[in-house]
Amino acid sequence: MKKIFLPFLLLGTLAFCQKKYVMVIHGGAGTITKANLSPEKEKEYRETLTKALQRGYNEIKNGKSSLDAVTVAIIVMEDSPLFNAGKGAVFTNEGKNELDASIMTGNNRKAGAVAGVTTVKNPILAAKAVMQQSEHVMMAGAGAEKFAKEKGLEIVDPKYFWTERAWNSLQKVKAMEAEKKTSKNEQKLPDYFLIDQKFGTVGAVALDKNGIITAGTSTGGMTNKKFNRIGDSPIIGAGTYANDQVGLSGTGWGEFFIRTVASKTVADRMKFLKENVKDAAQASIDDIGQLGGDGGIIALDKDGNIAMSFNTEGMYRGAVTDKGEIEVYIYK
Amino acid sequence: MKKIFLPFLLLGTLAFCQKKYVMVIHGGAGTITKANLSPEKEKEYRETLTKALQRGYNEIKNGKSSLDAVTVAIIVMEDSPLFNAGKGAVFTNEGKNELDASIMTGNNRKAGAVAGVTTVKNPILAAKAVMQQSEHVMMAGAGAEKFAKEKGLEIVDPKYFWTERAWNSLQKVKAMEAEKKTSKNEQKLPDYFLIDQKFGTVGAVALDKNGIITAGTSTGGMTNKKFNRIGDSPIIGAGTYANDQVGLSGTGWGEFFIRTVASKTVADRMKFLKENVKDAAQASIDDIGQLGGDGGIIALDKDGNIAMSFNTEGMYRGAVTDKGEIEVYIYK
Repeated sequence: MKKIFLPFLLLGTLAFCQKKYVMVIHGGAGTITKANLSPEKEKEYRETLTKALQRGYNEIKNGKSSLDAVTVAIIVMEDSPLFNAGKGAVFTNEGKNELDASIMTGNNRKAGAVAGVTTVKNPILAAKAVMQQSEHVMMAGAGAEKFAKEKGLEIVDPKYFWTERAWNSLQKVKAMEAEKKTSKNEQKLPDYFLIDQKFGTVGAVALDKNGIITAGTSTGGMTNKKFNRIGDSPIIGAGTYANDQVGLSGTGWGEFFIRTVASKTVADRMKFLKENVKDAAQASIDDIGQLGGDGGIIALDKDGNIAMSFNTEGMYRGAVTDKGEIEVYIYK
Repeated sequence: MKKIFLPFLLLGTLAFCQKKYVMVIHGGAGTITKANLSPEKEKEYRETLTKALQRGYNEIKNGKSSLDAVTVAIIVMEDSPLFNAGKGAVFTNEGKNELDASIMTGNNRKAGAVAGVTTVKNPILAAKAVMQQSEHVMMAGAGAEKFAKEKGLEIVDPKYFWTERAWNSLQKVKAMEAEKKTSKNEQKLPDYFLIDQKFGTVGAVALDKNGIITAGTSTGGMTNKKFNRIGDSPIIGAGTYANDQVGLSGTGWGEFFIRTVASKTVADRMKFLKENVKDAAQASIDDIGQLGGDGGIIALDKDGNIAMSFNTEGMYRGAVTDKGEIEVYIYK
């Protein structure tokens, strides 16, 4: 008898020990080190990430959908000036704020996305409306705004997105660009600056009591952006993806996430190679690194396992278990 | 001796018999049957597809890159009023022509895309310029046009894209939409009409003498399109993808190609499951069919094998071998 029961006992104990997560979030990856983040700012980030996780957890706990959980968590981050999404969006070269977002539910692989909206307070809600209330997946610019307005979403004056931090950031980048142009020896911009222009995107993945996974991503794009550039955040398969096995949200140098189709690669490695979520997410980030890009990706699989992989110095991130235990991390 | 050499002889003969393709193209999938295509129109389609293949083949034969081959082949189709790309682009709900295109080279996985441009004569050249002359992958609307102009691409008056066929198509769809709105029994639009609004995209994949694969796609979107909808054609991983093993271009109901990340799925099935190009392309189209969508996908792998899979009644398509043999097909 002992011989038979011991393995079961061990397996049972393992299952008990193994945490089952119901949500994972990120608030951007980049050159985030103890040295360049004041204790006060660090506290603010930790508090806001915790609030987002708590709100998302409450939805799941109350039997709401992972779509609801992802939406409320992302809205917390969009409404905070700390992140490059919603309120805290960075400025384009022309001094505007152009926001992108996307969302996808894994069970039916339905998806919605908006690119380059300037007046929608919460772009993640516009992405959700595109998914649920249109026959399309992706809408851009004025058309997306018209649609959001028709669906009754909150429209704000573009001035709402003005923050001192984002504005100063644009002035700094422009000044450095001008200096570069006039400088005879074609000085390169410091790497940390070039990199940090591209980061700050927020995202969330949740798993509800029905086993349905939803993933969402929202961003303000990159400081000093030109030519209506679209990054990976509104691109299904790049910045956001979900199927019945896993949900994903990326943050980082968007061009590399598009070229590697980063999120879909993780899902396909799990589906076709039977890799676990951690190995698959790491492989996708490694691939981005090999091409010369950087950033991070969060993932949550159908069994409640998470991955938070990144090849930058830090990533604002966190997760919550089915027991409501919240974990928040910033540095490596 | 006989026993040893016979298998080699057979394999050698097989290798000799097996055609090696250097380019495959499509001009859209949809309800294309003998019954609704006049012999004159069929001839025009066959001639233009042949011309595109011939031009592309000449590039490859002369040692040019697959990027050059894809570009010239797509330009032939963009400049023809027969296809829903470039000159023949369909009209949006507002009576405008908004064009999308993307291109990707497999060896370095570099990519470029434009969405919603209205004044660039050849959107595939704008996608190529984004890939080669910017640090971005995707640009949209006015920004993309500004960039194209700065790079010296041919800019045309939006009137250039007016064709009687596309204009009449918009009027018909609008009339049917109005009828639907006033009809008490909420008649559905005939399926063939709904479907054919979404098709006509063109694409090409080529393999050059250096073994480099390039894939490109160009479209005028869908008739009566609203809200600046973006389809799959400018989305890397959905409408276009290339790596060192295979290149792909899709055409069809774009929303389903985005949700399934159709092109990347084919590439991943080949890479991770070791499927051949035909099985992998068919699996991706089957998946789209299971979700309720339709369309087609063309593929060319590093060994010169092709796939032209579709679940519609027809797809304008063709391929050319390394010997210059041209094949053109329309129906199933």
